Amino acid sequence: MFIVCNQSSLKECLGIVSRVVPSRPTHPILGNVLLVAKENKLTLTGFDLSIGIKSSIECKVSVEGEITLPAKLFTDIINRLPDGDIFISIEDIELENPMVEIRSSSGVFYLRGVLAEEYPELPTAQENSFDLPVTPLIEGLKGTLFASATDETKQILTGVHITAKDNILEFASTDGHRLAVVKPSLEEETIIDDFELTIPNKALKEVLNIVANKETITLFSANNQLVFATDTTQLFCRSLDGGYPNYRQLLPNKFERNFNINRKTLIESLERISVFNDNKNTLVQFLLNDNDTINVSSDAKELGNARLIIPVELVVGQIRIGFNVKYLIEGLKAMNSQNIRFSMNESEQPVIITPVSGQQMTYLVMPVRIQD
Amino acid sequence: MFIVCNQSSLKECLGIVSRVVPSRPTHPILGNVLLVAKENKLTLTGFDLSIGIKSSIECKVSVEGEITLPAKLFTDIINRLPDGDIFISIEDIELENPMVEIRSSSGVFYLRGVLAEEYPELPTAQENSFDLPVTPLIEGLKGTLFASATDETKQILTGVHITAKDNILEFASTDGHRLAVVKPSLEEETIIDDFELTIPNKALKEVLNIVANKETITLFSANNQLVFATDTTQLFCRSLDGGYPNYRQLLPNKFERNFNINRKTLIESLERISVFNDNKNTLVQFLLNDNDTINVSSDAKELGNARLIIPVELVVGQIRIGFNVKYLIEGLKAMNSQNIRFSMNESEQPVIITPVSGQQMTYLVMPVRIQD
Repeated sequence: MFIVCNQSSLKECLGIVSRVVPSRPTHPILGNVLLVAKENKLTLTGFDLSIGIKSSIECKVSVEGEITLPAKLFTDIINRLPDGDIFISIEDIELENPMVEIRSSSGVFYLRGVLAEEYPELPTAQENSFDLPVTPLIEGLKGTLFASATDETKQILTGVHITAKDNILEFASTDGHRLAVVKPSLEEETIIDDFELTIPNKALKEVLNIVANKETITLFSANNQLVFATDTTQLFCRSLDGGYPNYRQLLPNKFERNFNINRKTLIESLERISVFNDNKNTLVQFLLNDNDTINVSSDAKELGNARLIIPVELVVGQIRIGFNVKYLIEGLKAMNSQNIRFSMNESEQPVIITPVSGQQMTYLVMPVRIQD
Repeated sequence: MFIVCNQSSLKECLGIVSRVVPSRPTHPILGNVLLVAKENKLTLTGFDLSIGIKSSIECKVSVEGEITLPAKLFTDIINRLPDGDIFISIEDIELENPMVEIRSSSGVFYLRGVLAEEYPELPTAQENSFDLPVTPLIEGLKGTLFASATDETKQILTGVHITAKDNILEFASTDGHRLAVVKPSLEEETIIDDFELTIPNKALKEVLNIVANKETITLFSANNQLVFATDTTQLFCRSLDGGYPNYRQLLPNKFERNFNINRKTLIESLERISVFNDNKNTLVQFLLNDNDTINVSSDAKELGNARLIIPVELVVGQIRIGFNVKYLIEGLKAMNSQNIRFSMNESEQPVIITPVSGQQMTYLVMPVRIQD
């Protein structure tokens, strides 16, 4: 192998690929990135056996070849080199662990590689393909990813459920305490074939990375193997098996109590009030018994307490209701509307928060019982 | 107590004082800050029994009084409040742990306090006083603090030795592996009385914080008690007992080998080369056998190695010599001259690095033996 590539392109590509390389790999080879130089392209691959990313940059290939290099060291070296040409070559490919020479204007690094044949093959899926426009994909993911479960034992709930039906895209996620549903608006001429998949949130976070500056991405699906592909990058993952909860039936459609509130003001107040609890699981109490303001308070018993008053509008009914402040803040931050609407029935029943304008998002939060 | 003060002034003052409040106090009361409201001033105090800071802001005092509050919670609350007036009052001072009300335009916080009488008295020193101009003080501290010992068992070496004699200020610090000596230039009319003190580096780091935007600071010294005082802030600490090593005799005055090198280029190269070692204690080897360039290399055995070539000037002699890369980088970063000079004798003897122009700084580094 002997190639010449550009430092900033290689740095960007390595940045995308190395994110999935595990810092404590189960097999040592998975701590490496695979480099394949072929037909004026350098393709890098990172893979943790559940998510794999393969991304290419253009480069001058004088001698084709392949090798794997320790991901962290290789990234550290490339990131610190000056912008400009980088020459990568292998000294003696006959060796089991050949030295790879990385030469730039500032000097030369030698890094010990491992032969590419030891690197596992990335699965592929090339059957059913769906072209997805990137803007609504980003909107859907940003509005739902935060509400999916992080606890791996919750299996299907660690994914985001994506449905395309009759040219309507819907994203949903829940961890059992809250549920986020987003229907991004599509441009009129967009046509999306019907599909229904639950995709691991870890993989979707990486999808957000690979679509930056792209317009469309193609999703290939075969059995439970998925590939997200842009012109330069492919991301492999597996869809989550099992039926996704029928979340639509959880959404109440009649409400006895409502109010509108400025989203940013409420976020600021909730952040102030969460001062009493480091892990942000503070219980916050809303007291609505006035048509102009709502009383937001938290009580940290021995330490102290706080009480903030926030203007509200279009008030219907009165209520005293408790929330986990973290769930509220995360949901409010995923919205972008200036004002939001709280819709409620009783203080133990699910609460629905929706943006007043713009974004089609529904956020359901289970209240927390207030101890008297 | 009932006072009205400004959020941003209080935030800044708390920021200075709370830095010395221990996060795991040996006595619970030391986790608090002391608030004293008197004569249109609010004075805050933080103290960990070795370093204490007392700082004041102007405020409207309607009722004088004093109380202590948990430093972290109080800081978190004040930092998150909007700029503007903050009203602080005590509900019932008869109680052992009275509630303190903190009211702003956005609402009200109640924080449980502890009576001020439980807070320890800060020692004072008001005998010998020395006025120090701030600019040379900062120059001296920034050029030496990094080279003092962080290991508390090294006692006297955890301080910076400051000497004022015949109107010359000299700062020195060493951890046994390297030595930094700085003589900041003074304006002609400056007069400083003679003194000689070794002051803990922890306290001097805080001194750097309290002198921001000040022109002079007064140092009071009585026995081993020291107070640094500006118009708004006093910092208390103790000087370190015991004789400071006679460092001047360690500085060689004749050299057989020399070269000049661009400081920034060398820092960049050393940072690149330290990629092979996470804790930055990499051994780096300099090979000087040419009049135009120096060969800087590091060998991480199994992982790989690196070799960078850097232009040099005014070369005298040849040498192969090893350094701890961390000591070099820290020293070079404390300098500000464009070019620096390395002066050496044999490869086991101390090396002197000096800025070629500007700053009067001498940095001595002990070389590391190179294993063949």
